[in-house]
Amino acid sequence: MKPVFKIEKTDPVTWARAGMLELGRVKIETPVLMPVGTQAAVKTLAPDELSGNGIGLILSNTYHLFLRPGHEVIKKLGGLHKFMGWDGGILTDSGGFQIFSLSKLRKISEEGVRFRSHIDGSEFFFTPELAMEVQKAIGSDIAMVLDECPPPDASREYVERSMNMTTRWALRSLKAMEGSGQGCFGIIQGGFFEDLRERHAAEYYDLPFDGMAIGGVSVGEAPEETARIVACTAPKMPQEKPRYLMGVGMPADLVRYSALGVDMFDCVVPTRNARNGQVFTTTGRLNIRNTTHAEDSLPLDSGCGCMTCTKFSRAYIRHLYMSGEILAHRLLTLHNIAYFSGLMKRVRRSIIEGCNASFADDFFKSPENGC
Amino acid sequence: MKPVFKIEKTDPVTWARAGMLELGRVKIETPVLMPVGTQAAVKTLAPDELSGNGIGLILSNTYHLFLRPGHEVIKKLGGLHKFMGWDGGILTDSGGFQIFSLSKLRKISEEGVRFRSHIDGSEFFFTPELAMEVQKAIGSDIAMVLDECPPPDASREYVERSMNMTTRWALRSLKAMEGSGQGCFGIIQGGFFEDLRERHAAEYYDLPFDGMAIGGVSVGEAPEETARIVACTAPKMPQEKPRYLMGVGMPADLVRYSALGVDMFDCVVPTRNARNGQVFTTTGRLNIRNTTHAEDSLPLDSGCGCMTCTKFSRAYIRHLYMSGEILAHRLLTLHNIAYFSGLMKRVRRSIIEGCNASFADDFFKSPENGC
Repeated sequence: MKPVFKIEKTDPVTWARAGMLELGRVKIETPVLMPVGTQAAVKTLAPDELSGNGIGLILSNTYHLFLRPGHEVIKKLGGLHKFMGWDGGILTDSGGFQIFSLSKLRKISEEGVRFRSHIDGSEFFFTPELAMEVQKAIGSDIAMVLDECPPPDASREYVERSMNMTTRWALRSLKAMEGSGQGCFGIIQGGFFEDLRERHAAEYYDLPFDGMAIGGVSVGEAPEETARIVACTAPKMPQEKPRYLMGVGMPADLVRYSALGVDMFDCVVPTRNARNGQVFTTTGRLNIRNTTHAEDSLPLDSGCGCMTCTKFSRAYIRHLYMSGEILAHRLLTLHNIAYFSGLMKRVRRSIIEGCNASFADDFFKSPENGC
Repeated sequence: MKPVFKIEKTDPVTWARAGMLELGRVKIETPVLMPVGTQAAVKTLAPDELSGNGIGLILSNTYHLFLRPGHEVIKKLGGLHKFMGWDGGILTDSGGFQIFSLSKLRKISEEGVRFRSHIDGSEFFFTPELAMEVQKAIGSDIAMVLDECPPPDASREYVERSMNMTTRWALRSLKAMEGSGQGCFGIIQGGFFEDLRERHAAEYYDLPFDGMAIGGVSVGEAPEETARIVACTAPKMPQEKPRYLMGVGMPADLVRYSALGVDMFDCVVPTRNARNGQVFTTTGRLNIRNTTHAEDSLPLDSGCGCMTCTKFSRAYIRHLYMSGEILAHRLLTLHNIAYFSGLMKRVRRSIIEGCNASFADDFFKSPENGC
């Protein structure tokens, strides 16, 4: 079924919204952060460890799955949910971002983009229609349109031309998805030019997308630049549709952009940083490699109820990490997922209770706001 | 408490015994295979995944834990069980085997062995007394005496001299463990010389060990050599004490040596081979990397009830493996642990039912006996 989005409460001071995104098999409370399962797995974790820690919706990568194992294989095996044993929701990106950040020898034309696989160099030609066909085969609950992500230092002229092509690609994507039961989200581009962002949002406003995303702001730019673009773009997006800020964020980002009315996020930070030893807690960040934890009998986060925190000490996890044990990566990932899931629940509760502004104030003043 | 071993049933045809090894916190059905948790973790798995798959007793490595994080740290944090969150039993080897297989610049004297850490080259001097002190600090349920493991090609003269020193070390180890509540097992050496093995077994026969091990037969020798030594040594070991064959084995070994009256085994095969993609099943072995599994919707083993087999297809696990996902190693390890645990249960049942001989016959004729 097509996604159904209902706003349950809007904060009286900030622009934050608490909503419910119904995806057929699962209902997702928003604002929500989607952990990233690039290759049909949220790295190190089994599906029940996601659902057991409050995760109902993940992101998976069309580009990676197209290259390996191939969308036809996934289709043959019953679609991505069945393939990976996941009962929750799945949003797939279109592959655009990965083509422009990972692959080699890209050649963009109106028709589509020719690229070489980052795995074995083999050549492919991706069109908006193929991106949607792949996502249909994968069977995600929400598909993203194919877009071009210009580099952050692209000229205004390049960004404008690219944005116009992305619009034409979005229309082709919508057409390709007609009659499908999958959701389809548009992606607003326009680089760091406020007027282009506003214009792109306006062009998309009445298109029959099930949700709208802000793309191209997580590519290595300064945080204040992202903030500037989100602040000008979010208010121009349809009120009644979910708003998705792609590739963001750190805990402070999630609090900040929820307050600007963003409903959905995805980010590799909980999982990738865990594998680097970085732990997010309600009292701030720590790195488990630090020798101060060598004999530390405390859990990662005394305020956390995850399996890692209820069963293991920092000293043990540090020992595993320093010894190169895979279990360390699991335990750290599990905790970070639980932390981010818990943070989003706290954000949502503050909106429901009408105190999102003071929640955000308190958050930014607390040690929890690390960076 | 000291381990208590009770033999419940002896097979009428083979020498196999079904027993119960009581370790205070847990009762272990024998014959048993101990998975190896070298660095205070059975690689990739959390403790509840072990107990949930029928594992009650694991082996951990004194040598590794002595070097990292250090036995004093483990003691300070409440002992190894608490440190690693494991409610089951733990047997620690003495470090002897690792000193002789992993460390550098070994120098053996009557007093002990000087060696350099394989991690950072720092120098240590291990004595039988220190080996026991370390195992006391770790707090394992069963400690092993320090022994010398001569290389498989050692001369008879060397092996005999070494064996005699190992006996003197064993007596020092026993003395060092006096008054301790931990179990202490002796290790029978003697290389591939049957008369030395028998003599060593006889020397140990009346010593107050809680169990007796056969050491030094898993070091790269031909399987028939191991079989010859086990066949001549096992009958000379005390009937009423648990017999432990160190570093063995493959499924066929477990069936074969159980039938020769061995009660305990440890082996890295279930875990290490999993990480290389090798899967043990009731219908034979497979390697998940094989392209025949690329679109294979079957579970690893249709006869297996583990989480991996109930939730995931070979195609999915192969995809994860080929994509370098850690989850593949977890899922394969989990299954192999479940397989070996199940095999030991089948062996035990055959003994209880008095049909161990025909069980072994059937096993060796079946595709399950892969090697």
